[in-house]
Amino acid sequence: MPARYLSFRCSVPWLILVLQALLLLRSFFGFPGLSDAYSPANSYLGFQDVNHMVIFGFGFFLMVLRRYGFSSSGFNFLLVVLGVQCCVLAEDFLVFLRGQQNQVGLESLAKAFVSVAAVVISTGAVLGRASPVQLIVMSLVEIIFFYVSRCINRTFLEVPEPLTVMHVYLFGAYFGLALASRFPEPPPGLDKNRSTPKSELFSVLGTVFVWVFWPSFNSILAKSKKVEAVLNTYLALAVSAVAAFILSALTSKDGKFRMAHVRSAVLAGGVAVTYTAHCNHPWIAMVLGLLGSVITILGSHCLQRCLNPALKLQDTSGVHFTFGLPAVLGAVAAVVLRVVEDGIETQWNELLGYTAFFNIGAFCQTISTALITGLITGLILNIKLLKAVHVSKYFDDQFYWEVSFKMISG
Amino acid sequence: MPARYLSFRCSVPWLILVLQALLLLRSFFGFPGLSDAYSPANSYLGFQDVNHMVIFGFGFFLMVLRRYGFSSSGFNFLLVVLGVQCCVLAEDFLVFLRGQQNQVGLESLAKAFVSVAAVVISTGAVLGRASPVQLIVMSLVEIIFFYVSRCINRTFLEVPEPLTVMHVYLFGAYFGLALASRFPEPPPGLDKNRSTPKSELFSVLGTVFVWVFWPSFNSILAKSKKVEAVLNTYLALAVSAVAAFILSALTSKDGKFRMAHVRSAVLAGGVAVTYTAHCNHPWIAMVLGLLGSVITILGSHCLQRCLNPALKLQDTSGVHFTFGLPAVLGAVAAVVLRVVEDGIETQWNELLGYTAFFNIGAFCQTISTALITGLITGLILNIKLLKAVHVSKYFDDQFYWEVSFKMISG
Amino acid sequence: MPARYLSFRCSVPWLILVLQALLLLRSFFGFPGLSDAYSPANSYLGFQDVNHMVIFGFGFFLMVLRRYGFSSSGFNFLLVVLGVQCCVLAEDFLVFLRGQQNQVGLESLAKAFVSVAAVVISTGAVLGRASPVQLIVMSLVEIIFFYVSRCINRTFLEVPEPLTVMHVYLFGAYFGLALASRFPEPPPGLDKNRSTPKSELFSVLGTVFVWVFWPSFNSILAKSKKVEAVLNTYLALAVSAVAAFILSALTSKDGKFRMAHVRSAVLAGGVAVTYTAHCNHPWIAMVLGLLGSVITILGSHCLQRCLNPALKLQDTSGVHFTFGLPAVLGAVAAVVLRVVEDGIETQWNELLGYTAFFNIGAFCQTISTALITGLITGLILNIKLLKAVHVSKYFDDQFYWEVSFKMISG
Repeated sequence: MPARYLSFRCSVPWLILVLQALLLLRSFFGFPGLSDAYSPANSYLGFQDVNHMVIFGFGFFLMVLRRYGFSSSGFNFLLVVLGVQCCVLAEDFLVFLRGQQNQVGLESLAKAFVSVAAVVISTGAVLGRASPVQLIVMSLVEIIFFYVSRCINRTFLEVPEPLTVMHVYLFGAYFGLALASRFPEPPPGLDKNRSTPKSELFSVLGTVFVWVFWPSFNSILAKSKKVEAVLNTYLALAVSAVAAFILSALTSKDGKFRMAHVRSAVLAGGVAVTYTAHCNHPWIAMVLGLLGSVITILGSHCLQRCLNPALKLQDTSGVHFTFGLPAVLGAVAAVVLRVVEDGIETQWNELLGYTAFFNIGAFCQTISTALITGLITGLILNIKLLKAVHVSKYFDDQFYWEVSFKMISG
Repeated sequence: MPARYLSFRCSVPWLILVLQALLLLRSFFGFPGLSDAYSPANSYLGFQDVNHMVIFGFGFFLMVLRRYGFSSSGFNFLLVVLGVQCCVLAEDFLVFLRGQQNQVGLESLAKAFVSVAAVVISTGAVLGRASPVQLIVMSLVEIIFFYVSRCINRTFLEVPEPLTVMHVYLFGAYFGLALASRFPEPPPGLDKNRSTPKSELFSVLGTVFVWVFWPSFNSILAKSKKVEAVLNTYLALAVSAVAAFILSALTSKDGKFRMAHVRSAVLAGGVAVTYTAHCNHPWIAMVLGLLGSVITILGSHCLQRCLNPALKLQDTSGVHFTFGLPAVLGAVAAVVLRVVEDGIETQWNELLGYTAFFNIGAFCQTISTALITGLITGLILNIKLLKAVHVSKYFDDQFYWEVSFKMISG
Repeated sequence: MPARYLSFRCSVPWLILVLQALLLLRSFFGFPGLSDAYSPANSYLGFQDVNHMVIFGFGFFLMVLRRYGFSSSGFNFLLVVLGVQCCVLAEDFLVFLRGQQNQVGLESLAKAFVSVAAVVISTGAVLGRASPVQLIVMSLVEIIFFYVSRCINRTFLEVPEPLTVMHVYLFGAYFGLALASRFPEPPPGLDKNRSTPKSELFSVLGTVFVWVFWPSFNSILAKSKKVEAVLNTYLALAVSAVAAFILSALTSKDGKFRMAHVRSAVLAGGVAVTYTAHCNHPWIAMVLGLLGSVITILGSHCLQRCLNPALKLQDTSGVHFTFGLPAVLGAVAAVVLRVVEDGIETQWNELLGYTAFFNIGAFCQTISTALITGLITGLILNIKLLKAVHVSKYFDDQFYWEVSFKMISG
């Protein structure tokens, strides 16, 4: 335990306390009375599902490493509850800037959960290598930058508000990747970043939860066409789950399945369909689910063998191919669809419409903002002040949790 | 790894791909626009619950065997997502035959989940002995035969449509049993088909999920009396859970509980009450819950000691006494109730009513179709072409999943 | 296995059977037709969530001890399903006394689940030391006394009915503590009452479920302001979760987190906010969440080091600081709020209002009834007739479940 880390006790709790005090003050002055404009049943159901998915699903989804179970679920929990409060603050600030009055209702909390997914995804990329101090700073910075990026999209590129939230996977994945590139690599002999069948089973448990609640996640963002969003997301998820098994068997030697592939690819459909979940053509959702699965499994082969070693990048739980690539696919598909729809409407007189350019702009702006701010955040997090963990202590619960040696062997 | 199995890579993925292409085509031409005739909140809740129960609950319920965790949850997942799509296709075909136009909404997807329960139950009977290839073929064949059986019930025996779906447990259990009888027995010395406390705990987790979501499952089928169905199912489940503990203590030596008994018997009430969930007398549901539990525990003793060895039948996760016997009880009780009700109405002038005969006919037709088609399917699955697994490879994840030896010992 | 325990087989099952027969009879005569006055969607959602939370969440929350997983989840399941039926009977009896007619609907079943939480909490205090016989007798006695205490509160102290149910944590925790003080301490060398990382992970799983479903739990009790109750409870839980991590790092040596602390303290906010969940000021909920977490972590240090050894008390899963202290905090806060509100209304002319006295009375009456009846129950449970378990058999699944030795080592 390096002495530097010990000062963690003196700094971070106070940082969090100040944050809590801010939110407390805001809620003292701000909440104009809880809004119950929405019918409770509908919005409560969505709120509950998204809450469940982000806290439980992602917490256990990340529980892959054999000696990192407490940290995976515990830190995810901490970051989510902290992040949701920051999102409410940030949303409030944005609304204040525009001179409106915000209302905190179940629906706005649910939207905060969706935004927090960016933090959860980025955490996956540096899982086991970032200390809680670094993770907390990261989530604060990331949420601020995500809101800045959304603000740019909405103000300058005239993207409607729900669409800006949908860039959450894109932002989370590329922010996390840029961040991870600044963390030192683990030593080659370290065997703590393996999984065991037991830890994989817990991870499967989490994956199934994420999978089941994904339709709720996408339908939160759809303003009016909720039923369509649920159905399309379900169909995309179903197709991508089937494709995940097929492709896992086809790409591995001996035709065996690989659980890591299946875990990533079953979720790809849900990510890929986000931008087009509200549209009226289920077959588009199904094709996207299929392509999402394909891109994830091919991506995992290419990235892990070629790109990552070349860039000296370590992406612990594979957020690039699980969330990044399918989100790119989804965004591109949404633009193509928009162009085709506009083309059919205007009888292809104005081939590339006005809005399509803006959509492409929003997409490029989000990715570049994510990459640049991620890199900067990564550099900041690895200065001495923030006490980087030594590489020999990577992927180990014992560094952060009181776990007796006897327990570990038990 | 036998060479024959390797060709799995060449055949099955394409089979599944063709299936997926079929559904894609169907959704391209077919879906007339998603139906949102139903209020989203209500049907979404049921859809979500049933989805959760079938994928998560049953997946972990089957996770009893100590080295078969990945396969239990993974293959269940694959079969369910594949099966749901086949059910939608089958339903579509049926509707097409009758010249109507089908609508895919949340409620029809939820009904597809219920139908898929037949496949899940049959899987339980051959758990650990059937390869994924065999399981996929089995589920396709089973879904087709289940729809044929439902069609006969509806067309020739004038059984109302929701009632035909309720035969799902009956069909699944007896189809699975007939199938299992065609699989070679595992060698007597094999100890992989045991459970460990850890695998039992995961199985308890799944059982509790199935238990909790069962009221949703039964209320999906009830057209109008949803609240009654929920309450009756809950009461039946509660009584059968209490009875499960009592009977497990009474029947085992030393008065100890046996987890395998408890797991089966707590669910018996939910199965037994299916046919009468909509009726207005909660005490009938409670009596059925009690009897279901009794029949399950007695059945597990009798079947495992007498019938199964005599028939050389191995029923890995006990689907006969968990789902088969309580379903028979429930069907008989429904007929008796109908006769009594009709008798009271007509003042016992026409003792055995017209409809009662039809109900008995539907019950017999379902069981015999299940047994015969199950036997045939079992024979087909064990021809050389479908590459049966060697008995020494039974109950082992390593045959289907990339699991390193180091991992297994971890 | 002492001979006395063997007679368990002869007595308890019949006791439970008689109970079941009573409820059956009651449902035969009593249920006037299921009430469907409530819109199914709303009340079903709450019912399902509370059901899930009590059975699954608490069952796995208690799964801390390394050799007591089957008993923790199994006995919790048995006590809940039995207790819910007893609560329905008790409620029925109360209503009968007042000459009204009761209706069993989803909402009344959900309320029964809330009442049963008292039993679950008390079980936590004697976890691993009480045999199933003792637990069943305990839950029957506790439910009766809880209803008596509620009856006194309602009749003599004019407390509104939903408020009487909110004393459930207070009653459960202090009843359990008084009970636990009458059980002999485990021998000092016993190492079975430790946790392992695996058992802790299952416990984290349960805790997360309890956490996620707590807003539903509190909103069941709020008659009209359901959305407020959900939001306030969520905010309190979020703040207490953040505070739990901060305080756990601040109070342990080396700044490491301690999972046992975090598990207790994340739930403290939900308990503390129960009495004030319906009020319109979210900042009050947040402050209560913060204070709840503080009181839990400080309490766990003080109680486990000073009070418990002095009183020779062993509180296996720490119900005193997890549920008892935050509930006291919440009750005191509710009284203070009431006084302030009344003071503002009457311009502080009548400083301590009429109702505040009654609230204090109800609070004191509940605690003292819980302590006295808990002590008496503890004395009754430890007479020879009820066959106390020998201390060497504490915390061991093998005493109650058929678990082979091979399995335990697996």
